[in-house]
Amino acid sequence: MNLTIADVRLTPILVADPPLLNTQGVHQPYTPRLIVEVVTADGITGVGETYGDAKYLELARPFAERLKGRQVSDLNGLFTVADQVAVDASRVENAVDVGGLRGVQTADKLRLSVVSGFEVACLDALGKALGLPVHALLGGKVRDAVEYSAYLFYKWAAHPEGVPAEKDDWGAAVDPAGVVEQARRFTERYGFTSFKLKGGVFPPDEEIAAVRALAEAFPGHPLRLDPNGAWSVETSVQVARELGEVLEYLEDPALGTPAMAEVAERTGVPLATNMCVTTFAEIQEAFTRGAVQVVLSDHHYWGGLRNTQQLAAVCRTFGVGVSMHSNTHLGISLAAMTHVAATVPDLHHACDSHYPWQSEDVLTERLTFESGKVAVSDAPGLGVELDRERLAALHRRWLDDDGALRDRDDAAAMRIADPEWVTPAMPRW
Amino acid sequence: MNLTIADVRLTPILVADPPLLNTQGVHQPYTPRLIVEVVTADGITGVGETYGDAKYLELARPFAERLKGRQVSDLNGLFTVADQVAVDASRVENAVDVGGLRGVQTADKLRLSVVSGFEVACLDALGKALGLPVHALLGGKVRDAVEYSAYLFYKWAAHPEGVPAEKDDWGAAVDPAGVVEQARRFTERYGFTSFKLKGGVFPPDEEIAAVRALAEAFPGHPLRLDPNGAWSVETSVQVARELGEVLEYLEDPALGTPAMAEVAERTGVPLATNMCVTTFAEIQEAFTRGAVQVVLSDHHYWGGLRNTQQLAAVCRTFGVGVSMHSNTHLGISLAAMTHVAATVPDLHHACDSHYPWQSEDVLTERLTFESGKVAVSDAPGLGVELDRERLAALHRRWLDDDGALRDRDDAAAMRIADPEWVTPAMPRW
Repeated sequence: MNLTIADVRLTPILVADPPLLNTQGVHQPYTPRLIVEVVTADGITGVGETYGDAKYLELARPFAERLKGRQVSDLNGLFTVADQVAVDASRVENAVDVGGLRGVQTADKLRLSVVSGFEVACLDALGKALGLPVHALLGGKVRDAVEYSAYLFYKWAAHPEGVPAEKDDWGAAVDPAGVVEQARRFTERYGFTSFKLKGGVFPPDEEIAAVRALAEAFPGHPLRLDPNGAWSVETSVQVARELGEVLEYLEDPALGTPAMAEVAERTGVPLATNMCVTTFAEIQEAFTRGAVQVVLSDHHYWGGLRNTQQLAAVCRTFGVGVSMHSNTHLGISLAAMTHVAATVPDLHHACDSHYPWQSEDVLTERLTFESGKVAVSDAPGLGVELDRERLAALHRRWLDDDGALRDRDDAAAMRIADPEWVTPAMPRW
Repeated sequence: MNLTIADVRLTPILVADPPLLNTQGVHQPYTPRLIVEVVTADGITGVGETYGDAKYLELARPFAERLKGRQVSDLNGLFTVADQVAVDASRVENAVDVGGLRGVQTADKLRLSVVSGFEVACLDALGKALGLPVHALLGGKVRDAVEYSAYLFYKWAAHPEGVPAEKDDWGAAVDPAGVVEQARRFTERYGFTSFKLKGGVFPPDEEIAAVRALAEAFPGHPLRLDPNGAWSVETSVQVARELGEVLEYLEDPALGTPAMAEVAERTGVPLATNMCVTTFAEIQEAFTRGAVQVVLSDHHYWGGLRNTQQLAAVCRTFGVGVSMHSNTHLGISLAAMTHVAATVPDLHHACDSHYPWQSEDVLTERLTFESGKVAVSDAPGLGVELDRERLAALHRRWLDDDGALRDRDDAAAMRIADPEWVTPAMPRW
């Protein structure tokens, strides 16, 4: 068995994305993702997936070169490689990352997002080489299926007229009735029992009404609202007081640790985050100040599946809950999330996933939700298989793009419908 | 490849231990250890080692029964098994564990100490089955050798006359000259460059003189002093002020988080611990109060090698250093410590090990120190091999014991030389 990395392939793609609304704007009709393949000397291929914007791709290329000749089992070494790859400082604005709503952006976080794609590919290859599922390489599953929540979005029926885009059959959702209808379809199609509404789109009163409508339609089901930091502390406190009874948690009502800490102190509603705490460096202050009660790990930001396990250990040690965040992603990342989530003992909240919104994938067989859960695969590696024709087609779309879509920009996408749109100043309400 | 556990063997042994002094008393001439063997359906045997006192052995037996039929790769599941095994409450005094000086004792800690023996055995078996070294199962080594410190002890030349015991060639060390002479031998034999003195044995002035003598004999070398919590806050502050210039860190000068926090606040000397923080439950208060600057992980207490990695992640996140503690142990545990230490990126202090004091082992080939370091094995598993004849001989010694030595009791051992000896009340000075 030769575990040496003989080749690494990077394939940037554009995948169809419906017109989902958030506080920054709207999803582009196509979103960039990067598919990573790591090939061992024995010809075993492992796959990974991460963000595909230019700044990630630029960093992934020299990273890939340095991987050749290393062992796929050398996962700790990926961080050493990351330290050796220079980040173009102009790519790191040290500000909230627009479009992706990915919290504060730093050079480290950019590096870790790239590491995660390679880490998952290495784990997949290692698992295939050893005949073990990825969860076994992470210490073994403690559950046979991982629960996900229905990720509800305000959305238009279609992208603006004249813009090349794929159609979707979800219809519009711009008011409480539309949100409840969307939730029903999620339940019928996938069996989800938890619901998360992406907020920060309409004035808080309208979103409160939507959550109340969900609570009425699905009594007793866990509900979450996530305005991506669009509210002031006062607004956050007010919403928390109005919805406290029906919310499992409120996600990122306000931006930054001081604001979150104040909201947490003034309300009894647990606060979840994927913006306030997105790196290990942000944990100490946030935990010490009691700013967050649930950290939503995104294995892409955090540097992979093993780092996600470490994050879970830190959270457990400090009595903070843990669950999983999602951005637009395909089946490789859903499989990776499912493997790691299966190994985290104290995962007490259903994970988020955009996957049901993605009509396209690069797999021969899509992953499925049954009763809101994804079964944990016991096949070697991640248990997924690349569909090379689909991958090539989505890559061709990326090649054919003139650059307009290669960096996700939700505000620019919104300007096509509303030329006056500017990224809102925060807090928006 | 069948990774199912077909058999588990537990072998309690008694190993020779020199008359090393600490604040509780003196090491017994023979110390109990438990050797764990996990055998897969394919006949591959993995070995582990942990504390061997009766309370560990009693817990290990039902644990071993429950392991049969499980997978050696199911390491997370070991904690589930641990939760299912009842701890005899009378075994847990919720007090500082005498003899072992193992910090506060709890049912959880007892369980984790047992888990660690099985976890290491499973990792060894899994590595052998897959053809991978244990460090690769932990994400891969980031260094080729792990540095250890010389663990200096005040000691007698021999155990009390008339007590059955093995001889040692280290001679006595009961004053500064004896300590420096012992340090020289450590350096000559093993190449150590860091020195730790086990203190709390003589009045603080005598131990300050010993550390000063070491500083003079080995200028610029890292020095540590560990009185096992024998001092008051005032004494600790005074010693820290007197030795601050020459100490790398002071280990457990006083007992408990409040006392440690006060010492830390009043001096600039970093405080290390393996008594104040010995479980994940103790971390939050200690870190929040700044009570410790370096946690010395003992993979036995903490529940194994993967938990040690998690501890390291927690420490890293909170800007606290990490290194490794040791109690009387054999080569299996030294190999395990070396594998995990090789994977922790920010290990900035030489680890402790009693191993040079152990003249006996259960391995066909002892591990060696070169320039104070143990080379990280790349052989499958831990890279060690059981010597069944030696194991049987040390087990026979355990069988032949009337029970007097099966629970380590340093105070009882001291009473043989000094019938008036009682476990000192803390703080002793």
